[in-house]
Amino acid sequence: MTEEIVVIPGDGIGREVVPAAVSVLEAVGDFEFVEADAGDAVEAETGEALPAETYELAASADATLFGAAGETAADVILPLRTAVDSFVNVRPAKAYPGVDALRPETDLVFLRENTEGVYAGHEDRLSEDLSTLTRVVTTSASERLAEFACDYVEDRAYDGFSVAHKANVMRETDGRFRDAVVSVADDRGVETDEVLMDAFATRVCLDPTQFDVVVCPNLAGDVLSDLAAGLVGGLGLLPSANIGPDRALFEPVHGTAPDIAGEGVANPSATIVSAAMLLEYLGYDDEGRAVRDAVESVLADGPRTPDLGGDASTEDVTHAVLERLD
Amino acid sequence: MTEEIVVIPGDGIGREVVPAAVSVLEAVGDFEFVEADAGDAVEAETGEALPAETYELAASADATLFGAAGETAADVILPLRTAVDSFVNVRPAKAYPGVDALRPETDLVFLRENTEGVYAGHEDRLSEDLSTLTRVVTTSASERLAEFACDYVEDRAYDGFSVAHKANVMRETDGRFRDAVVSVADDRGVETDEVLMDAFATRVCLDPTQFDVVVCPNLAGDVLSDLAAGLVGGLGLLPSANIGPDRALFEPVHGTAPDIAGEGVANPSATIVSAAMLLEYLGYDDEGRAVRDAVESVLADGPRTPDLGGDASTEDVTHAVLERLD
Ligand SMILES: CC(C)[C@H](C(=O)O)[C@@H](O)C(=O)O
Ligand SMILES: CC(C)[C@H](C(=O)O)[C@@H](O)C(=O)O
Repeated sequence: MTEEIVVIPGDGIGREVVPAAVSVLEAVGDFEFVEADAGDAVEAETGEALPAETYELAASADATLFGAAGETAADVILPLRTAVDSFVNVRPAKAYPGVDALRPETDLVFLRENTEGVYAGHEDRLSEDLSTLTRVVTTSASERLAEFACDYVEDRAYDGFSVAHKANVMRETDGRFRDAVVSVADDRGVETDEVLMDAFATRVCLDPTQFDVVVCPNLAGDVLSDLAAGLVGGLGLLPSANIGPDRALFEPVHGTAPDIAGEGVANPSATIVSAAMLLEYLGYDDEGRAVRDAVESVLADGPRTPDLGGDASTEDVTHAVLERLD
Repeated sequence: MTEEIVVIPGDGIGREVVPAAVSVLEAVGDFEFVEADAGDAVEAETGEALPAETYELAASADATLFGAAGETAADVILPLRTAVDSFVNVRPAKAYPGVDALRPETDLVFLRENTEGVYAGHEDRLSEDLSTLTRVVTTSASERLAEFACDYVEDRAYDGFSVAHKANVMRETDGRFRDAVVSVADDRGVETDEVLMDAFATRVCLDPTQFDVVVCPNLAGDVLSDLAAGLVGGLGLLPSANIGPDRALFEPVHGTAPDIAGEGVANPSATIVSAAMLLEYLGYDDEGRAVRDAVESVLADGPRTPDLGGDASTEDVTHAVLERLD
């Protein structure tokens, strides 16, 4: 069976790093690629940042690889997460040997709730002066995330996971989140520890090795994983996976980098590692591992794009990764 | 006129660092101190973490100096902020020469909205499965914060301020916040730049000198200022001020430090600098400046408590600060 992978380069450097990752996927597997549009450019043309056709493709493919979108990022990425019915956003933040990092010992994985919290999309203008947003937390979504987290740490032989939240203030909603997550973990015999999201922000700077896998509500995961990106040297190297029950969406955490877009010097590593996560998701564990190792090896002593202080092109780096795959 | 200062040591090291700061205040001014209870200990005794009497005292004094509370922190500090009708939480995060910091060049001030956002306190259990929290943002609170921010940067000759928010997702609420803040600044001729709160988390790690004064909604200010604390070496040195129209509440950002409480070795610097902010709030600018300078000088080459690698006591450090005040 040939899996169908939808490929959405999007805007800016998305158009450079996604083809790079596709060439890596082509080298290790036999997939059917379907390209689709999304982002600022297609919005300028058609009035829609995420054409219905793209949404439908993502909603039916086995997996989707997305690059980046500019101003329309939220209009593209949030519906795409819904298209694949993604309930968890997996965000590894790991420093690579040989790459400058504020905290080179950082090796974290965020498991971010991906459907609710402040992202549920209920906002109201109640008066000239006052607007509200309804933050939603359900036990069912929290439990689904927790089951995933338990599988995740068991598969990878972690000791357990941390739960980051703000239940001292959001007692009912984050209290529900925390209780549901901890209770699933208890039932499964998986260890957890709790940390307030503000305390996490301080403590992860002081010593990131205190944490491994961090389970958090949607916005907490957004901010804390970006903080971890700062500790490993920026968004440039961070992959992510939006996992649903039947399909998934993979994307580098970085944006469109308008300052360098079109110059052919974007660092493709984050997208290639996102492709490695895609391979693993589809069950190609060996291929995924091989791609990760190749990227890591190139980061350590191969050609470097300008963001890492080198003068190699996207193509040079991709070529080096392909070579080390053999 | 002798100003009345309510003093609430609270729990843990609050009982050690607050008296230290009081002795500094006594050395530079003529104040009437009234001591009041709050925290875990008084809750254990009376069932109330914040006795009505303490609330009333804070609500009528010129200023309040609070130490820390343990498990009951939220039950104490949130109502105390209300007691002084505080609309802004001022949180400087500055690295001190001679003190280990992940980013020694950090010198930031967070101006955190202090009345609404997710802290408005509206949560509901709508079903067995689902709870909601109503996040509240008003133009009036945002404008009041913005006016304060404009005064703040004008008084201190900053170029302008940054506005951190998540208006790409919370379009109505954070959109309202951003629009209100930017529009006040525009009217006042104060420059602003905008940054998404997640992007801020990455960027402040990579280069904290990109930012000076950062205006943010309540929870964003909570998390981002704690992140900045991580960059300057921990919560141990961070002061804060909760400013209202007629009175204010000052507190170190750190907690009760149960591991060292009672040993007389807590670092009093954050509380003494909070007292300096109190002096400045009451109009004693020279005295405030002198206290800051004395603390900074002791941090640079004076006795150090164990958290900074020394073996001095709270008293030794306080004594050194008092000496350098003369
Ligand atoms: C673009 C934006 C809507 C998105 C989010 O908030 O989830 C981004 O910050 C991310 O983390 O993928
Ligand atoms: C104790 C807690 C309620 C409080 C807050 O969230 O504001 C604390 O984290 C702070 O920043 O002062």
